[in-house]
Amino acid sequence: MASGTDPPSDLLAADDAKLQFVPFTSALDAGFWHQLTQKKLNEYRLDETPKEIKGHYYNGDPAGLPTRLTLEFSAFDVNTPTPARCCPALGSLYNTNTLESFKSCDKKALLDRAANEIWEAIQSGAAIEDPTHLTKFHLLTFSDLKKYRFYYWFCFPALCLQEGVRLLQPPASLAQRFSELQVGALQRSYDELWQKEGTPPPYFLVKYTETSCAVAPLRAFPDFYKDGDKVTLGFCDPCTLPQYPGWPLRNLLVLAAYHWGSRVREAEVLCFRDRTLQGERDVTHSLIFHIQLPEMPANQELPKAVGWEKNQKGQMGPRMVNLSECMDPKRLAESSVDLNLKLMRWRLVPTLDLDKVIHTKCLLLGAGTLGCNVARALMGWGVRHITFVDNAKISYSNPVRQPLYDFSDCLGGGNPKAEVAAAKLEKIFPGVNARGFNLSIPMPGHPVHFSQETVQAQRDVEKLEALIGQHDVVFLLMDTRESRWLPTVIAASQQKLVINAALGFDTFVVMRHGLKMPRKAGAAESWADGANSSDLLGSSLFSNIPGHRLGCYFCNDVVAPGDSTRDRTLDQQCTVSRPGLAMIAGALAVELMVSVIQHPEGGYAVASSSDDRMNEPPTSLGLVPHQIRGFLSRFDNVLPVSLAFDKCTACSPKVLDQYERDGFQFLAKAFNSSHSFLEDLTGLTLLHQETQAAEIWDMSDDEIV
Amino acid sequence: MASGTDPPSDLLAADDAKLQFVPFTSALDAGFWHQLTQKKLNEYRLDETPKEIKGHYYNGDPAGLPTRLTLEFSAFDVNTPTPARCCPALGSLYNTNTLESFKSCDKKALLDRAANEIWEAIQSGAAIEDPTHLTKFHLLTFSDLKKYRFYYWFCFPALCLQEGVRLLQPPASLAQRFSELQVGALQRSYDELWQKEGTPPPYFLVKYTETSCAVAPLRAFPDFYKDGDKVTLGFCDPCTLPQYPGWPLRNLLVLAAYHWGSRVREAEVLCFRDRTLQGERDVTHSLIFHIQLPEMPANQELPKAVGWEKNQKGQMGPRMVNLSECMDPKRLAESSVDLNLKLMRWRLVPTLDLDKVIHTKCLLLGAGTLGCNVARALMGWGVRHITFVDNAKISYSNPVRQPLYDFSDCLGGGNPKAEVAAAKLEKIFPGVNARGFNLSIPMPGHPVHFSQETVQAQRDVEKLEALIGQHDVVFLLMDTRESRWLPTVIAASQQKLVINAALGFDTFVVMRHGLKMPRKAGAAESWADGANSSDLLGSSLFSNIPGHRLGCYFCNDVVAPGDSTRDRTLDQQCTVSRPGLAMIAGALAVELMVSVIQHPEGGYAVASSSDDRMNEPPTSLGLVPHQIRGFLSRFDNVLPVSLAFDKCTACSPKVLDQYERDGFQFLAKAFNSSHSFLEDLTGLTLLHQETQAAEIWDMSDDEIV
Repeated sequence: MASGTDPPSDLLAADDAKLQFVPFTSALDAGFWHQLTQKKLNEYRLDETPKEIKGHYYNGDPAGLPTRLTLEFSAFDVNTPTPARCCPALGSLYNTNTLESFKSCDKKALLDRAANEIWEAIQSGAAIEDPTHLTKFHLLTFSDLKKYRFYYWFCFPALCLQEGVRLLQPPASLAQRFSELQVGALQRSYDELWQKEGTPPPYFLVKYTETSCAVAPLRAFPDFYKDGDKVTLGFCDPCTLPQYPGWPLRNLLVLAAYHWGSRVREAEVLCFRDRTLQGERDVTHSLIFHIQLPEMPANQELPKAVGWEKNQKGQMGPRMVNLSECMDPKRLAESSVDLNLKLMRWRLVPTLDLDKVIHTKCLLLGAGTLGCNVARALMGWGVRHITFVDNAKISYSNPVRQPLYDFSDCLGGGNPKAEVAAAKLEKIFPGVNARGFNLSIPMPGHPVHFSQETVQAQRDVEKLEALIGQHDVVFLLMDTRESRWLPTVIAASQQKLVINAALGFDTFVVMRHGLKMPRKAGAAESWADGANSSDLLGSSLFSNIPGHRLGCYFCNDVVAPGDSTRDRTLDQQCTVSRPGLAMIAGALAVELMVSVIQHPEGGYAVASSSDDRMNEPPTSLGLVPHQIRGFLSRFDNVLPVSLAFDKCTACSPKVLDQYERDGFQFLAKAFNSSHSFLEDLTGLTLLHQETQAAEIWDMSDDEIV
Repeated sequence: MASGTDPPSDLLAADDAKLQFVPFTSALDAGFWHQLTQKKLNEYRLDETPKEIKGHYYNGDPAGLPTRLTLEFSAFDVNTPTPARCCPALGSLYNTNTLESFKSCDKKALLDRAANEIWEAIQSGAAIEDPTHLTKFHLLTFSDLKKYRFYYWFCFPALCLQEGVRLLQPPASLAQRFSELQVGALQRSYDELWQKEGTPPPYFLVKYTETSCAVAPLRAFPDFYKDGDKVTLGFCDPCTLPQYPGWPLRNLLVLAAYHWGSRVREAEVLCFRDRTLQGERDVTHSLIFHIQLPEMPANQELPKAVGWEKNQKGQMGPRMVNLSECMDPKRLAESSVDLNLKLMRWRLVPTLDLDKVIHTKCLLLGAGTLGCNVARALMGWGVRHITFVDNAKISYSNPVRQPLYDFSDCLGGGNPKAEVAAAKLEKIFPGVNARGFNLSIPMPGHPVHFSQETVQAQRDVEKLEALIGQHDVVFLLMDTRESRWLPTVIAASQQKLVINAALGFDTFVVMRHGLKMPRKAGAAESWADGANSSDLLGSSLFSNIPGHRLGCYFCNDVVAPGDSTRDRTLDQQCTVSRPGLAMIAGALAVELMVSVIQHPEGGYAVASSSDDRMNEPPTSLGLVPHQIRGFLSRFDNVLPVSLAFDKCTACSPKVLDQYERDGFQFLAKAFNSSHSFLEDLTGLTLLHQETQAAEIWDMSDDEIV
């Protein structure tokens, strides 16, 4: 590696009488790698074709700095302006997909190809018109995005003049050779050309007398010099060493030898260095070399080329930068988390709309076994907005089954689940926006008679309504049936997607509630679009049921929810289930949500059934079922579909109408009443009576026979 | 609640001239509740019938202590010896299943029944023969084992003499009434009876003169007293108040009135208190009451009874003790964790052998996405012994998918997974015995040529062999195919159950490896029992395949494992999978393990297939499949079964023979060689050649036609 103060090692081995050049040192800032990561993940993916990039170099560095070619964040946009006072350098990026292909890349062939391009640009004269042809570079990379390690190898191709360039005099600084007058004229003339060209001219021609100094672009050569004029080739020199020119000179000399052969047999080179010293512009440390260029035959073939950068050990080999430790850990975590997800898009599910998933705001009602597992799976999908509602405290039996809690959370009577769960998500991934609310959900059959209770219940209902309003998906993950009633009603009314999971001992149901259509203004019968079917048994045979006609958790029930905890024994009180069940159901609940979200019609998507397993899936992720019912003892899942029930105690038009008209007044009646209130309202009472009548009839029938 | 120093409140309301009694105060130590919890979980379960228990009381308490009836850990074994110097009290425990049934229990009926039993024991004379009939108590409980709250209500039934007992003189202490001579004689006589009876006689008769004092059991009444002798009824008095007798006296007085009516119209009562004061026995604080007992008609019906204990507020009502805060949190966590599991046995799976599960020692190879989820599910099942092996460090993308790690574990380059995972398990549940080993598993196709590498590999192999030997079940949860080879070989050789889980993008396989039969000594062909079938395609159609003939992960492969990471792109390197998949597969891996363990034949159990879903399951937990292959896009699982393959590169007789004979030397060859070594060894090479030959044949055949 070339340092700024010592002559580069390859110079020492060369002949003293020959001009030697200080190679470029690549300077890649973290922003470059960050942007490469983004490009790789979002744009290039598995595409290995070369990409145009842009670097720059500067001829104003203070002594001590190496001859740098810098690539920044902006390198990937070649139209981005070059930083002030810098010369642009265009390059090609070869980003490989594997370390193997990085290693096995044929470096000689790449260099030959690159050299040939420059040679052609020289021969054709294109490099005279646009001298940036002479500073083209190549960059071979492999990005280990899991570990934030970047392997790279730069190539700055330089064509070689076979016999080298003879140095006729030791180098002299401009201060030694130019008067102040000459220096001033040089500066003025250079700046004029700069102004005309827009960027500092990387290569230029110089002509000077004792009292003047003029500068011209390369293409001006024939007119600029008269016969006998001494030719002085100028270039912006990024090198800061006082004895050697920088690398960009090399291809200029080949160009000069090829095009201006006899005129430059003897010539001068101005290594133009242009720094600011104590607030004053200073170019007097620029160097002037007096050289002799070899002859180049007219039929010259592609000259030999060099240019692969040495690595940190001074050997020909790639460099590696490990950015995992210098990047902000929180940002690192964020991009790492995204990585796994974006990888899915590259090959497996190119149409996956991850942004839709990541920005879905999820409300988790229940932070127990199911709630914790659902939150974990949402985190895995990159969901950034997760809110918990629970009113319980963490007890000693929880942590082994509820993967957001530790033993320490149980001490001193236990901390509130919702708050601990939210705090835990941020410990897992600081980029998440997690909140927890210690809130009781009022339930039918759990009366709120006293005014104190009523006030509290009303407050809880309002809070729940607000929370449901602020989220996109509501997960029902409680351990009683009746606690699911209120959020089912509110979410149906607000047309929010509901994902419901419930566990038995070794069975589970994971389902999406039917998503109601937006209400037509003022029409009392508007809900009636939902469903009219009372054909409960036959409904699972139906196919092609659109999302808005699907049932909710209560649609299959013919009794209203009531207090199911009042007289349960211990094994009924705790939802006793096989330990693996909640992990499976929680994961499936989230996968179902993602599948629904990926469907172009979202919650209105037609429900897939078990029969659809043989058909073309509706989304790139597969089926979008209404319900997944799992049987762990058989390691089996079935996908039933059922219709919304027009006498449902939670989502039927009658219930939603009353709720929307009377609000808490209606809800309080449901909380305080026995089953019969909701059953009377929805017509279930009548249905029961009819059913009983039918049963009696059947019996009499039997007796007649 | 009666305190030791103030007269109990109910005394104050009574008539001064009447004898009043200090009720028992129940004293239940934590050991009693702990043992009740165990009994409830393991023995009583839902059984609500009364259980015999045993308490005791002591007449040697220092002043200030209440009149305690103590129940300890030992209360549930009525044959357990009564603590030294204490009187036994037998009782009935009514442990209800619900708080509702606790509350709604008919206390009056219970008391009446209890009183009647005592009354009958009095009438029949059984209480004279065995006076412990007089101190029978009843205990009504409800245990909220989730919260460690115990609700209870004691009943110490006391029959009431209708008009009460008249006090003829103020009470006097024995010190006031007895000479030293008399006291000494009382003690000697009492001790003789004690020695004869084995326990301190709770009730006895006393007869004294100025120079003597004799003691006799109740049954001796007719012979002990001569006509005209003053009757002195003695009892061990747990009361420490200087004016009142304790509760046990009440039923004795009824007995005396009933049986010895006229003889005890006027009588004395000796409240025998027997303490040690400054190292000296002292009974002189015993009390003597001079009383008049009412007449009892011969046809006396069941007298009125009292006895329900007041609660801490001094009201008639149950007491509640919350032990969640005073119990050792770690022990609390332990019993809480067991609770959920034991609940399964009560109603759902009475035959479940939890001990087998809990004591299974599990070795988890891989502490990544699968490893973390498997460990979580094992914790849920109460498994106490979990060991992790992994050689990776925790990276920023891990915590959202690997539920044992937090963001903080990623900082500074990341902590080693295995160690952090083990430490985390102890944070979740201090009762677990978790260890983590930062260990690389040598793999075929990953050569160990240099001596340094070879020494390390040999050390790693030995460590892995030792770990597999120390565990019952080996989980293969790595992310490459070839890393599963070595543990498959070692576990097959050691006849350890292997559970293997592997993820695709939205598919997974969870399987148990065939469990080899114990090797017959010295027989080279012993492994041949495994399988001879090369019928790979047809094997899944087979049914009734016993565990020892089932295939391993490599049995279905016809190439040996090699370096699969060498040339993979990023999306192939990371096992990119739908985030829910690992939770599902991890949970199923553990549920499969538990199902296998519950089968009486364990790993030798016949494999269940998808077709068996309709049949009677082989265990109370259901099917015991060989493989579960899951398809998340269809929410479907299938249960294929396949035979061990006699040319398997991991578990075939040839491989195991060589491994057992040549040990590391053989393994090193496999690590260092290309595929062909294992393929040559097992005969796969020959199979490939035959297959190719067969293909050529088929083609020629086609051409002829």
